[in-house]
Amino acid sequence: MYVILVYDVEQKRTAKMLKLCRRYLHWIQNSVFEGEITEAKLQELIHRARRLIDPETDSLIIFTSRHERWLDKQIIGKEKSSTDNFL
Amino acid sequence: MYVILVYDVEQKRTAKMLKLCRRYLHWIQNSVFEGEITEAKLQELIHRARRLIDPETDSLIIFTSRHERWLDKQIIGKEKSSTDNFL
Repeated sequence: MYVILVYDVEQKRTAKMLKLCRRYLHWIQNSVFEGEITEAKLQELIHRARRLIDPETDSLIIFTSRHERWLDKQIIGKEKSSTDNFL
Repeated sequence: MYVILVYDVEQKRTAKMLKLCRRYLHWIQNSVFEGEITEAKLQELIHRARRLIDPETDSLIIFTSRHERWLDKQIIGKEKSSTDNFL
């Protein structure tokens, strides 16, 4: 399945969250990731993310689509991932 | 069409960007919006956003889908929009 993941976590957890998400998906902007992932891997990612976040303050939004072709992507301005992908 | 919009702009432009996007879409997280919008309205939003951003530093990613039903949305942690929608 195709996934878009966006997180909003407190500053002190951003590095861990970034690292976790990059193990599963492609980083495309600040706190935005996308990619093809299996249902099992997505559940693993969600499970790990739940252990990382504080549900009182942090949030994670995951959009899933069975096919990437059902979505078009357009980037206005700077394409982050092409230049800043080396954290 | 159904749209997910995510922006990453410099601090000094966030308030203007937030205000602009909220005129067209629903705010669901920090810098993430979604909603049904016509192609004409989306083009208007993009046009206005282009005048606001600095393309050297800021970016705007827009995912579009012809039907909202092609996407599932899952929120882990805090549901921002339900409580913080009164900026």
